[in-house]
Amino acid sequence: MTPPALTDNTADADRLKKKLSFSIGTDHIVIDHGVLKDLPATLKHLNYRCRCVFIKNDGCTHLVGILPISDPQPPAAIAVDLGTTRVIMELVDLAGGTSLLQKAFDNPQWEIGPDILERIHYADKPGGLGQLNGLIIDAVNAEIGRMCEEAGMDRSRVYLMSVAGNTSMTHFFAGLSPHGIIREPYIPAANTFGAIRADELGIRINPGGRVFIFPNVGSYFGGDLLAGACYAEFHKAKEVSLLVDVGTNAEVLLGNSEWLVACAGAAGPALEGGVSEIGMTAGPGVIDTVTIDPETRSFQIGTIDSQPPRGICGSGMIDLAAALFLSGMVDIRGRLVAETCGDRYREIDGIPHVVLVNGEASFNGEALAISQVDIDSLIRSKAAMYTILETIFGYVGIRFEDIRAFYVAGTFGSFIKPRSAISIGMIPDLPEETYQSLGNSSLKGAVRLLVERAAMDDVESIRERITYLELNVNQDFMNRFSAAKFLPHTDAARFPSVSFPQ
Amino acid sequence: MTPPALTDNTADADRLKKKLSFSIGTDHIVIDHGVLKDLPATLKHLNYRCRCVFIKNDGCTHLVGILPISDPQPPAAIAVDLGTTRVIMELVDLAGGTSLLQKAFDNPQWEIGPDILERIHYADKPGGLGQLNGLIIDAVNAEIGRMCEEAGMDRSRVYLMSVAGNTSMTHFFAGLSPHGIIREPYIPAANTFGAIRADELGIRINPGGRVFIFPNVGSYFGGDLLAGACYAEFHKAKEVSLLVDVGTNAEVLLGNSEWLVACAGAAGPALEGGVSEIGMTAGPGVIDTVTIDPETRSFQIGTIDSQPPRGICGSGMIDLAAALFLSGMVDIRGRLVAETCGDRYREIDGIPHVVLVNGEASFNGEALAISQVDIDSLIRSKAAMYTILETIFGYVGIRFEDIRAFYVAGTFGSFIKPRSAISIGMIPDLPEETYQSLGNSSLKGAVRLLVERAAMDDVESIRERITYLELNVNQDFMNRFSAAKFLPHTDAARFPSVSFPQ
Repeated sequence: MTPPALTDNTADADRLKKKLSFSIGTDHIVIDHGVLKDLPATLKHLNYRCRCVFIKNDGCTHLVGILPISDPQPPAAIAVDLGTTRVIMELVDLAGGTSLLQKAFDNPQWEIGPDILERIHYADKPGGLGQLNGLIIDAVNAEIGRMCEEAGMDRSRVYLMSVAGNTSMTHFFAGLSPHGIIREPYIPAANTFGAIRADELGIRINPGGRVFIFPNVGSYFGGDLLAGACYAEFHKAKEVSLLVDVGTNAEVLLGNSEWLVACAGAAGPALEGGVSEIGMTAGPGVIDTVTIDPETRSFQIGTIDSQPPRGICGSGMIDLAAALFLSGMVDIRGRLVAETCGDRYREIDGIPHVVLVNGEASFNGEALAISQVDIDSLIRSKAAMYTILETIFGYVGIRFEDIRAFYVAGTFGSFIKPRSAISIGMIPDLPEETYQSLGNSSLKGAVRLLVERAAMDDVESIRERITYLELNVNQDFMNRFSAAKFLPHTDAARFPSVSFPQ
Repeated sequence: MTPPALTDNTADADRLKKKLSFSIGTDHIVIDHGVLKDLPATLKHLNYRCRCVFIKNDGCTHLVGILPISDPQPPAAIAVDLGTTRVIMELVDLAGGTSLLQKAFDNPQWEIGPDILERIHYADKPGGLGQLNGLIIDAVNAEIGRMCEEAGMDRSRVYLMSVAGNTSMTHFFAGLSPHGIIREPYIPAANTFGAIRADELGIRINPGGRVFIFPNVGSYFGGDLLAGACYAEFHKAKEVSLLVDVGTNAEVLLGNSEWLVACAGAAGPALEGGVSEIGMTAGPGVIDTVTIDPETRSFQIGTIDSQPPRGICGSGMIDLAAALFLSGMVDIRGRLVAETCGDRYREIDGIPHVVLVNGEASFNGEALAISQVDIDSLIRSKAAMYTILETIFGYVGIRFEDIRAFYVAGTFGSFIKPRSAISIGMIPDLPEETYQSLGNSSLKGAVRLLVERAAMDDVESIRERITYLELNVNQDFMNRFSAAKFLPHTDAARFPSVSFPQ
């Protein structure tokens, strides 16, 4: 800036605004009161040469920080993947647009309830919401402290945070009641949040910093998936793509640069390792690949980090179900076939089981077996998934083979082997290259928001164009669901690539 | 609003935004986080029928409160005339646009220094600014409490406050350093403030309420005068008007709907009763009118509330000077004439005096007299006033008689009798009806901002169109000033209506 003079005695604040409005081409510049208070001293000290940190929001450009031109510490930002189970945070250098470090921790709300439903009910108790909010805010603050310490950076250098989570987690984070999310007509307190002042949320970054919370489309389609859609750049391609996040709920987004349709439905907890006796989330010793030789019916079991097996995760279950089916150990109705299972077949309390790992090979000396109940549960999940896909494609009026890409989002999604999922009829019989794992697309979308100036507009434009399709569980849906409960489907012609013993 | 349903499951916040954006025709609606937190419960409780309180600022519409449709207590606002000496506050019913009550108190910063300059220096000491800020904020908060109690209203019903003060007082109020105001190149920390969140300023109204601080044009042209200009609706008339606020500084605004020129200059403290031994601000027993029979030279003295005289205020001094001059007791050079003063003439310590009130008639038994020094001081002030007017009119290139109205602002201004001020050549010899007192135009402008939706835009459009004329005290100015130190002027032809003994 030109320093003030008798011939140009505009006030410091207005001088800065004028300069900024010229540099960045906007008139709606608002100087945060905290910055304004120190402005004359800061500008004088920096001899009217400075870098400005500003955050665009609500149609205004908020000036939140003033830094020296040459400054050893970059202004920073943090992306947060706010999971129900696990929270992952990434520290980003805003000036360079590069990632500095990534950390993860277990969501401390787990102590209130591992399941999001329990937490939503708990929030209705007196002080419950405050407690849930405090747990996550404190944990995030503590992690910010550790990250900044490791990066050798003061937390006041963090000016922006982006938070992507499901609708309930987002509500807990913002201190909003999730009450309506699970009760008819299933509406959240808010869909959009914008960039909230960090101090209003209790987040300890720069006092003038902002926290952008990814908006949701509804109770069952959260900001995490929207962040993923933003990362996958759905809104840019003319060809139709599909994004699926599989967990307890299957969240699905179908569309292109012109239209977007979303829906979500209960896929059942089988895919998260929540139901099966030996089911667990991914970790060392957890079975994630199963192959069975169709001739010899000998098992090949792979575990994470090649540790002795202790349980099986969702993607392992899909692998297992596919292998059992292709080797004839499970029939098209999903029932264990005692004859083909041979000595792996057991009945415990009258329920058929198939032994995966015998006692000598397992982690704790006990055999690992999957029951008919577990398999039924998985089949319901896969049938739900397929029916949801069938419904949304039917609603839009396109065929499965019309899509350019089938993105699988989420950590869980990245472990699913498309071949196995196709074999059990969970996902359509498309060429394998159509399936693309996005990894943690929620975190990646949150990072993109921090480093790409256009991303914030993208988020809103994606959200606004989404038509949310309420899954109407009517007789038609139930008929399709029943058909999808067969392996791979009552209409096996839909899965020409799957050859199974008839 | 239409309550949510399964077929329309927009979130509460977004449902409300959609409705508001339809009702008030704007897209940039931001729901304050404090309101958002309680939104689902509030809307449900009010059965989706509510009144919204919103504040437009920075191009956004901020939703700050939600009230029942029929509510006994109106949403309220407070206008503040933030004077160096006295603070006046008015509580306004925002729904009805009517004034509820008005209160005034002495500015507690007086204890730091009666003079604004002392306070500005004090603010540079460690903790000084915080102390000055705390004094005024605490006093305003206490007055809010008293006003609300008297009105039977909770302070949370006050959503907006408008504050008009000079540039230094505005800086103290906002916690900004006034350091630059009195030092070359005389720039304030900020010219514009917008509507700041009350809690950021420590103002205890509704937590989401806003405080609009009137902007200044420069160090010597503050928000108080801008509020006055807004009240006088300067920007609407095609004819040229003049607005003058006379105090220690004379602040002048000249213009019409197309152009505005402002300037300010030291008029001397004589007009505020600050210099004369018996000078004081208006109050019971203070002399505010003086007439002298030109033949008999008998005095007629009027006091406020007709109490025994105890001093003289600025407007009384102007009256007195005019009467002394017109009766020949003071000559055209402003010197007391011993012969014509007769037995009222005294010399004390070699300085000529004229006795106004003798001991028996006065408040405390002591005679009240005005010295030659007091008269000289008043004459310097009147000369400064006239020279400033001559300069600004000369700059613009119009004649005094071209103006439609000469508005006199401020409490002091409302007491000045134009006839007396013309007689001593303080103001131009225009028809008396040209002169109009606006009363406390600063407070009235602040009230207008609260009750008229267009006023906030008016303030900014007036401020933006003002050209601030830096008074260049050069030889030319000094020549004009010297000529104006005569009574009424060396060029008496400029004051044809004034007949005085030659």
